[in-house]
Amino acid sequence: MKNLKSIDRLTEAFSKLPGVGHKSAEKMAYSILEMNDNNVYELSDALKDVKESVHHCKECGAYCENDICEVCSNPDRDKTRIIVVSYPRDIFPFEKLGTYNGVYHVLGGVLSAVNGVGVEDLRINELIEKVNRDSVKELIIATNPTTEGETTALYIAKILENMPVNVTRIAYGLPMGGHLEYTDSLTLLKSLEGRKKI
Amino acid sequence: MKNLKSIDRLTEAFSKLPGVGHKSAEKMAYSILEMNDNNVYELSDALKDVKESVHHCKECGAYCENDICEVCSNPDRDKTRIIVVSYPRDIFPFEKLGTYNGVYHVLGGVLSAVNGVGVEDLRINELIEKVNRDSVKELIIATNPTTEGETTALYIAKILENMPVNVTRIAYGLPMGGHLEYTDSLTLLKSLEGRKKI
Repeated sequence: MKNLKSIDRLTEAFSKLPGVGHKSAEKMAYSILEMNDNNVYELSDALKDVKESVHHCKECGAYCENDICEVCSNPDRDKTRIIVVSYPRDIFPFEKLGTYNGVYHVLGGVLSAVNGVGVEDLRINELIEKVNRDSVKELIIATNPTTEGETTALYIAKILENMPVNVTRIAYGLPMGGHLEYTDSLTLLKSLEGRKKI
Repeated sequence: MKNLKSIDRLTEAFSKLPGVGHKSAEKMAYSILEMNDNNVYELSDALKDVKESVHHCKECGAYCENDICEVCSNPDRDKTRIIVVSYPRDIFPFEKLGTYNGVYHVLGGVLSAVNGVGVEDLRINELIEKVNRDSVKELIIATNPTTEGETTALYIAKILENMPVNVTRIAYGLPMGGHLEYTDSLTLLKSLEGRKKI
């Protein structure tokens, strides 16, 4: 007895989800058979709905369902301070803090020779325009602490060095609750370099 | 910044999948945003397709895309030997063996006072009819080794005791590759009871 065609098709489709291997995808596909019809149709429709109704904010590039996202359209947010991130999802951890009152700018990736991502592929010109237009005082670069994230951060700092904007980088160091014993030496080195008077 | 409505809806829908909690569901929902459009539409359609094209085999109750499943419609399968299982998915492990040449019968559950599942809720009458019609020689009861699975197995054995069919139960014991040290005492007891001359 071979797998049913429609199950194979669904397994294949589930396995495209990040972190879902063939085995889990097959398990999910079979579980669909035993789920309530309404729940399955709801999932099917919700998937299409997300693709159809979620766009990028025209201002900052974040995910939103309107032209302009909730942050950019909020008159209480400080437009002169911008956190620069690589991807839309990187905004959420900052918003969860609930203490940041500035806005964001999504680059749409990181500079990467390996993956062929150049300056023209990122939303860097839009960032420069925004810095000029809104007399931005501080740009906080929050790309990931990887080689490519670093390169991107340095590139942005470089092209803005003659403009009246303060370009900063989020700090590196030991994660809170972490243990010295288990910390890799690069993180420890960064943590030493970034030491502050207490 | 709150979650987008369509993301909330998709998260809710994903969390109905068995074994998917709210956190994983949210992660999946966001990953959909970054997936290729075609893959998302394919998943959405494949979900609907499974619900629309997979039915229960009219003969044995297994999943199939036609009226009669591959096993029941195969003239080479021995119709006089039936493995009785609770759920359609329980057929797969037997088919994977590749050595069983009989057919199956899906009960559609187990007798359960707690869940209000009585004899009339299971496909037991169909089983009795089949035993008569096809002069079945052996029924191998393969309900799970749980209290409810046991009750169901005993009930079927009881109502068929005066018919010319050999009703057997799959064996209990140590799983192959298992360790005595880690075996629960009930399994060990069953393993002792089921001992065979070597």
